[in-house]
Amino acid sequence: MASEPLPAVLPVTDRTRHRRLREQGSLERADLEAILDAGFVCHLGVVTDGRPVVVPTVYGRDERWLYLHGSVAGRSLAGDVPVCVTVTHVDGLVLARSVFEHGVNYRSAMIHGTARKVTGPEEKLAGLRRLTEHATPGQWSYARLPDRRELAATTLLALSLEEASVKIRTGAPDDGDGPDAALGLWAGVLPLTAAWGEPVPDPALPPGTPVPEHIARRAGTRHG
Amino acid sequence: MASEPLPAVLPVTDRTRHRRLREQGSLERADLEAILDAGFVCHLGVVTDGRPVVVPTVYGRDERWLYLHGSVAGRSLAGDVPVCVTVTHVDGLVLARSVFEHGVNYRSAMIHGTARKVTGPEEKLAGLRRLTEHATPGQWSYARLPDRRELAATTLLALSLEEASVKIRTGAPDDGDGPDAALGLWAGVLPLTAAWGEPVPDPALPPGTPVPEHIARRAGTRHG
Repeated sequence: MASEPLPAVLPVTDRTRHRRLREQGSLERADLEAILDAGFVCHLGVVTDGRPVVVPTVYGRDERWLYLHGSVAGRSLAGDVPVCVTVTHVDGLVLARSVFEHGVNYRSAMIHGTARKVTGPEEKLAGLRRLTEHATPGQWSYARLPDRRELAATTLLALSLEEASVKIRTGAPDDGDGPDAALGLWAGVLPLTAAWGEPVPDPALPPGTPVPEHIARRAGTRHG
Repeated sequence: MASEPLPAVLPVTDRTRHRRLREQGSLERADLEAILDAGFVCHLGVVTDGRPVVVPTVYGRDERWLYLHGSVAGRSLAGDVPVCVTVTHVDGLVLARSVFEHGVNYRSAMIHGTARKVTGPEEKLAGLRRLTEHATPGQWSYARLPDRRELAATTLLALSLEEASVKIRTGAPDDGDGPDAALGLWAGVLPLTAAWGEPVPDPALPPGTPVPEHIARRAGTRHG
């Protein structure tokens, strides 16, 4: 598909304009890409019979497109349909002096657009590769690749990365210099982090089947 | 609001019927509640100008209602509007022999309904308490509670827990007894877990301000 690079500054549209907590909005495409690259599960929103439906699914990306595993939303996505894809990383609880100032440290990206079903086998294979390598780098060259029948049975959606909105909150609570500071209460952040554990072998495996290096080295590393 | 207990078996409706991977669907209300209780951030879907918008927000619950911090979606929620709220916990990558059989171990709850703005100060305070205690047990009796002005400035939404759909996938890949088992490849699950870190004090705190017990004891515990 189109190959011109997307602008480094995200466009401000009616849908992406930050209406609230403007200091948390970012217009840097690099921030968008970092948030997408830090995760592999998104929440895909579609409209079905006039009502919203939000399903989790896995994704990958290239410079231009977000690729989504679309079977979960397949029934809603017969043709090109408006979607909203949101990826959120929760980094911690912001514990302020007052309940009112409580919040969450997070990084979130919201992508608006029209999802198209990927039909060309070449782009489908390339998109699935992005998706697989995004979740588990090294796996595409290790596992058995999709055959023709499997490729046809897979629904892959593509969404342009053009129109997106990024929000990031970091750091301490906001009431440290207000009147509530005099209350003498503890305030700060309780961090939340995700990490990969030790690989759990399929019980059906013959004993002694070695864990491949690209999976073994991930154990204990941070995710998100 | 209505106080009759909700049925222990979730109702099957056009929206909650599991159309795919039926073995992953649960109709147990206890599973719904466990998934909700394991997290505090959801993805709230609404329809704006005919298009889906999915925003992350925090929630709490009682037996009957899910309470959502609604400011992020405030502009879309002038009155009672159809929403879909999805909570997802990602438990690991399912690494099969074939790319086609790859998947994710997860627990996800999707709640459908019409969100109402909570306007009565009593229910609003009770809902905010649920929300605060859900994210940080013990914090409601520690932090300064909302005053009248703050309560008025807070948008709280309530969504009935009546109509919900639950999906859970656990365990090993599905191709351990198929022809691909002969490939001799490693297969299994790479677990993903989230955990609370050590509290980070607000730099504005007077030195020596003690971390309250209900926060300190959470450090190192698992989340999700």
